Amino acid sequence: MEKEKKLVEAITSMDKNFAQWYTDVVLKAELCDYSSVRGCMIIRPYGYAIWENIQKYLDDAFKATGHENVYMPLFIPESLLQKEKDHVEGFAPEVAWVTHGGEEKLTERLCVRPTSETLFCEHWAKIVQSYKDLPKLYNQWCSVVRWEKTTRPFLRTTEFLWQEGHTIHATAEEAEEETIRMLDVYADACENLLAIPVLRGRKTDKEKFAGAVSTYTVESLMHDGKALQCATSHYFGDGFAQAFGIQYSDKNGKLQYVHETSWGFTTRSIGALIMVHGDDSGLVLPPRVAPVQVVIVPIATHKPGVAEKAEELRQRLNKVVRTKLDATDKMPGWKFSEYEMKGIPVRLEVGPKDIEKGQVVLVRRDTREKIVVAMDAVETKVTELLETIQVALLEKARRTQNEKTFTVQTVEELRDALDRQAGFAKAMWCGDQACEDKVKEVATATSRCIPFEQEKAGETCLCCGKPAKHLVVWGRAY
Amino acid sequence: MEKEKKLVEAITSMDKNFAQWYTDVVLKAELCDYSSVRGCMIIRPYGYAIWENIQKYLDDAFKATGHENVYMPLFIPESLLQKEKDHVEGFAPEVAWVTHGGEEKLTERLCVRPTSETLFCEHWAKIVQSYKDLPKLYNQWCSVVRWEKTTRPFLRTTEFLWQEGHTIHATAEEAEEETIRMLDVYADACENLLAIPVLRGRKTDKEKFAGAVSTYTVESLMHDGKALQCATSHYFGDGFAQAFGIQYSDKNGKLQYVHETSWGFTTRSIGALIMVHGDDSGLVLPPRVAPVQVVIVPIATHKPGVAEKAEELRQRLNKVVRTKLDATDKMPGWKFSEYEMKGIPVRLEVGPKDIEKGQVVLVRRDTREKIVVAMDAVETKVTELLETIQVALLEKARRTQNEKTFTVQTVEELRDALDRQAGFAKAMWCGDQACEDKVKEVATATSRCIPFEQEKAGETCLCCGKPAKHLVVWGRAY
Repeated sequence: MEKEKKLVEAITSMDKNFAQWYTDVVLKAELCDYSSVRGCMIIRPYGYAIWENIQKYLDDAFKATGHENVYMPLFIPESLLQKEKDHVEGFAPEVAWVTHGGEEKLTERLCVRPTSETLFCEHWAKIVQSYKDLPKLYNQWCSVVRWEKTTRPFLRTTEFLWQEGHTIHATAEEAEEETIRMLDVYADACENLLAIPVLRGRKTDKEKFAGAVSTYTVESLMHDGKALQCATSHYFGDGFAQAFGIQYSDKNGKLQYVHETSWGFTTRSIGALIMVHGDDSGLVLPPRVAPVQVVIVPIATHKPGVAEKAEELRQRLNKVVRTKLDATDKMPGWKFSEYEMKGIPVRLEVGPKDIEKGQVVLVRRDTREKIVVAMDAVETKVTELLETIQVALLEKARRTQNEKTFTVQTVEELRDALDRQAGFAKAMWCGDQACEDKVKEVATATSRCIPFEQEKAGETCLCCGKPAKHLVVWGRAY
Repeated sequence: MEKEKKLVEAITSMDKNFAQWYTDVVLKAELCDYSSVRGCMIIRPYGYAIWENIQKYLDDAFKATGHENVYMPLFIPESLLQKEKDHVEGFAPEVAWVTHGGEEKLTERLCVRPTSETLFCEHWAKIVQSYKDLPKLYNQWCSVVRWEKTTRPFLRTTEFLWQEGHTIHATAEEAEEETIRMLDVYADACENLLAIPVLRGRKTDKEKFAGAVSTYTVESLMHDGKALQCATSHYFGDGFAQAFGIQYSDKNGKLQYVHETSWGFTTRSIGALIMVHGDDSGLVLPPRVAPVQVVIVPIATHKPGVAEKAEELRQRLNKVVRTKLDATDKMPGWKFSEYEMKGIPVRLEVGPKDIEKGQVVLVRRDTREKIVVAMDAVETKVTELLETIQVALLEKARRTQNEKTFTVQTVEELRDALDRQAGFAKAMWCGDQACEDKVKEVATATSRCIPFEQEKAGETCLCCGKPAKHLVVWGRAY
């Protein structure tokens, strides 16, 4: 039992030091490791398996909504990046520059893609002629690089994995519809796959994507009350189309500019997963995204029949859920700790007494509840229990989010409230960026979004006291 | 019919100019497009869908053989690349160097990964302690960059997509077994998915991978008789382990070096697919890898019932095979050309007379054979026909390969034979690199491999006349 104790002790309590707890979990659950490249992480098998489940879910949703996958180059010539003015201003300061190929100095610097709008636009300008060529609904899975000053595993890394959807449409209406459709795909993935409740809304101009007309976001709240942007969807109007000359001839043979969108979901979501559901024993994974849904831990394996029964259960269960059997000679207690750390939703214990009684013991990772079920019914019981856990995790996270959501009237109230307890703070805003800047200065909070579900929390702006235009949700964010 | 004619005319005949035919096919079948970045291509939806099918097939095979996916950083610090002497010599001349991050000049240059052995090794040195930690069976899907001077879509590009498997083992025997196991996975994918017959063998020391003890290869033959290396699998011994200090304590507590392998399969395989099966009408795709297996072209869609029947057939067929219905108002002849260009294995035609007779017409892409089948049995007939085509393509390619394989005794015979007709030339070799160099000089041919299936094609080396050690297959290669 010494090793078990040691393993548990090695994790910082989340209430004592949340940042350290987070780092402990990502390392000890073997989600990732640091590399010798500044700000770049190694995604280890367990972390990558979570990402593969996210990819599968999103990729299916993209294809079901008519999107096709493509692959664009890793590099963007400097002149191409510069074609859209706002875009280059947003990204140029934080890109990695390739200046040499082999021994040869390049005549033009290439940046490692921070995002690929410019590449998609250049391609579309070549291949789009007629309204019959529209829409183009493309997506790509890749990594991108942004030269970050301070980095944290999954949350902010110099290189990260993501998908970037890019689409062009004949009309502004169609493009706007697409922007919201994909935001809804993201909200669905957050809530139904990751069990993370989200707030859907529009970013203020200050917070929107470089080059976008409007940016929509799904925002979530972590255990420590800090906000995290889970994914964004951008509507570009015809700004890029004008900069890149992407035109089509409409039904009347008249040349028109296309209307464009882009949207992205990143490995950051794994950071959210950890910080929404985790506890002092480590990760807690929602069953639908868990690489292993049930781990079988046989008890007293030296007793006759136990190893065989455990293997039989593995084979039966693996037909309906992702199952792992740990038949190693480690102590059961040590295994319990390890799989709790890894957040496996259900542990199945089976020993000589259980076999005698024709039963197994199921232990929930989220509540630690022990449930004795008949061995004959194990497939049904485990499947049901996983569904129950999935629902319970979302409900629990929603309760936490509600508890940490409050309304304030002034920027000072906002500051005091956030100092007491971080969370989503609702307050009215006049729409003026000067007031948004002041919120940052006084309350060190940013506007998370202008939620789609507007309510009237007051009449006047939290800063200037002038008539308010929008309800904004403010917070301190990752 | 004018457009149809134009489309067909636009392709160069493969016997007239094979290189131009290849370029025409990749562009007109919409597999890829050029980008403004030197040597980097854009993989378009149709080309990427082929890659996705390849990925799925290989990924399943990797997981079935116990491998896990991971993700390593895109960048490798210069000092890390230099740790293994042979490896850096092989790759340093052809890497892209990042020298600036944002505004800041880096203290150490980073190369964009040309391959990731060094990153895997650095990680393993940290995480491996005991024999219980072995083997590590890892794989990663990503893109890599090698600064090529002359490039061709899919065949040789500055950036390409691939998977790179990296494994470490307690013993040399286990690592060598792994190397061959993964070579066999590749041979299986080539033959059973891509219908490309391959020759399995070992590379000569001159042709092996930078840093490897031995490199194994699967070699194929294109329509023009030139050879193409489809995939390689490398055994490293403990060379990298020594350079990076990857040690484990064995059962007796003694420190040992691990033994390592790596193996890769790239988007190059799509180039092989084109050049093995294609014809003057464009691509010919083996059914198992085809993004669309059956295309339904309704005839006389203005006649009552045709559009409805075509849609009904689409719904029925789509349950068993990947089906597309082209219900646009283009001329059928134009559609025929387009889907022949895209290599869709089976075209299904249905018109008023077919409906009357309760039949549909199936047209094979590979042989152009027309088969009338009962509408009631369409699912079974199409499924069977796709299987037939898959088998027929492999057999046809195998016949071609056999016809283009011959035996020679001397380097002059080799040169003359290859000048008459490119192909696989078998000849005996003494094992001396000087002779291999001479073959290149005299016959402009390289050793493709020392095939596993050795035969005695003579007693003496094709160059020096000294006693021969191996049968080597020589060829002119892509």
